[in-house]
Amino acid sequence: MKALLLEDIGKIGVGEVPEPVPGQGQVLLKIKAAAICRTDAKMWKMGHRDLVLPRILGHEICAVRTDDGKRHVVWPGTSCGKCEYCNSGLENLCGDMKIMGFHSDGGMAEFAVASEAALIEVPEGLSDGLASLAEPVACTMNAVKMGKVQPGQKVLIIGGGPVGLMMALAIKGSGADPTVSEINPEKRELSRSFQEKTGIPVKGELPEGGYHVAINAAPSLAAFQTGIKKLLTGGTFCIFSGFTDVKDEIAKEIVNVLNEIHYRQLKITSAYGCTRDQMRSALELIEKRADDFSLLIQKTLVLEEAPDALSEIWNGNALRHVIEFE
Amino acid sequence: MKALLLEDIGKIGVGEVPEPVPGQGQVLLKIKAAAICRTDAKMWKMGHRDLVLPRILGHEICAVRTDDGKRHVVWPGTSCGKCEYCNSGLENLCGDMKIMGFHSDGGMAEFAVASEAALIEVPEGLSDGLASLAEPVACTMNAVKMGKVQPGQKVLIIGGGPVGLMMALAIKGSGADPTVSEINPEKRELSRSFQEKTGIPVKGELPEGGYHVAINAAPSLAAFQTGIKKLLTGGTFCIFSGFTDVKDEIAKEIVNVLNEIHYRQLKITSAYGCTRDQMRSALELIEKRADDFSLLIQKTLVLEEAPDALSEIWNGNALRHVIEFE
Repeated sequence: MKALLLEDIGKIGVGEVPEPVPGQGQVLLKIKAAAICRTDAKMWKMGHRDLVLPRILGHEICAVRTDDGKRHVVWPGTSCGKCEYCNSGLENLCGDMKIMGFHSDGGMAEFAVASEAALIEVPEGLSDGLASLAEPVACTMNAVKMGKVQPGQKVLIIGGGPVGLMMALAIKGSGADPTVSEINPEKRELSRSFQEKTGIPVKGELPEGGYHVAINAAPSLAAFQTGIKKLLTGGTFCIFSGFTDVKDEIAKEIVNVLNEIHYRQLKITSAYGCTRDQMRSALELIEKRADDFSLLIQKTLVLEEAPDALSEIWNGNALRHVIEFE
Repeated sequence: MKALLLEDIGKIGVGEVPEPVPGQGQVLLKIKAAAICRTDAKMWKMGHRDLVLPRILGHEICAVRTDDGKRHVVWPGTSCGKCEYCNSGLENLCGDMKIMGFHSDGGMAEFAVASEAALIEVPEGLSDGLASLAEPVACTMNAVKMGKVQPGQKVLIIGGGPVGLMMALAIKGSGADPTVSEINPEKRELSRSFQEKTGIPVKGELPEGGYHVAINAAPSLAAFQTGIKKLLTGGTFCIFSGFTDVKDEIAKEIVNVLNEIHYRQLKITSAYGCTRDQMRSALELIEKRADDFSLLIQKTLVLEEAPDALSEIWNGNALRHVIEFE
């Protein structure tokens, strides 16, 4: 059969390969449509954490089962089905995840095999091409979930490529209010008819004001910085796109940390100061465990000793010092 | 009266100053105990975002009201009481927040004034010194809340100074299981009796295995990196301490972003891939808005055209390309 084969990073071409043979629990699929993702281009140019070579690419597909002739899209993952992630509806975080088009051959070919459990039937009226968008649209729905987007909230999407625009439709579908930011005027122009038809704006300059949620659909640290600055206090940033666009060594280290947050779907929250009620609860806890907290007061002193104590505290090897007054 | 006055960054001393006069809604307090925070030392050495000079320091205090003689601790904030943050129990995020010991004079003095609304009465048996810990303990309780620490969860605190240890007691008090990490052996030694009495370990090397939540009580990027690496997949990092310990220019920029997350109590979450159920929902959305999604398919092509399409996608100015098969 014909297939698009990535032989090595940088080396790709269409050639003849043997037709795949379904294994246990798998079915043979005749491919109808396969959408091309920027991640496919990235694998060709740079590789990917989950890529095993050589590989037939393609993880956004609509196909017909060769046994019963019905059309399906394919969830590209194969998860263990037994771990705490699989059992709690977070199978995309399964430690044993294998992905079609990454670990195993994908759908940019005349035929492919997939686990029967991964198939989802396509409604009749939907074209093959539109159905092949189900995987990227589902990924944007995952961002809507992880970002806890609520109806009525203002959501900023940084990056106006196809996935950013799909994200905007998913956000609109959830009842929230999306704005897309795209710094490249050519890309803004490319989505002109989309903007007119859907009423979703794709902006070059962002107006004043804040957003409840910001999501990056672009791989630059600048997208991260823009999103953080534009959030309302207490708002949420969802890392949707991994970061690749980085040159400096120290920045690379930090970007590795951000990408680890992305790949492991970690959450970062923050705490500044405390509320009045939390102080009341704190007094209760200190009273209840007075003996333990007493061990944290290293020294009591008079006011005149405070400057020396500050030096000691600045040098770092101190527990709490308390100034007492008569 | 005597007071510890920070005249300028780097210039601090105990001297005579006029006794403060309570304004509208304020009371005059005779200070009993004022604990010294590392932030006090930081203000002296480096300044602080919220510091207005010259300033009497001290935001962790236990004091007696001069009018009725009762002992109180003081919530150091004065918030507007009217905004959406004040109205939803997040008054520490109020945009008009003024902090005692930062914007106005604090309690490292014989007397201070505070808003009557900020006072919380101290239980009778509790010493002045222990009561003065209510503010930092309340801040750690805010981290327990923001990190969504659940009973039974394993929580890693990076930094074994006094606030890291108070945090451990707050986490234990919430029913979760704290471990403290401290790279400095002298600091580990300093908390020896605390560790023995409470059973909370302070470790130099962390054992294998992961944590549900990690919280930094140390200002280095290394603490951030350690916490991320040690989290279980899907876990939560809470930025509790701002980051100061950074030299490189690009790292400083990124640290500014992390500190903005901290000061504005932002949340970061992330999304990687999608679940099977999300793909089912995606198909439904695409069917419902087929006309809109159609505008995102820029081109359909045959397999042989895929390599050129990948180049175009890599260059960045493209919507979705779909390979169609007969």
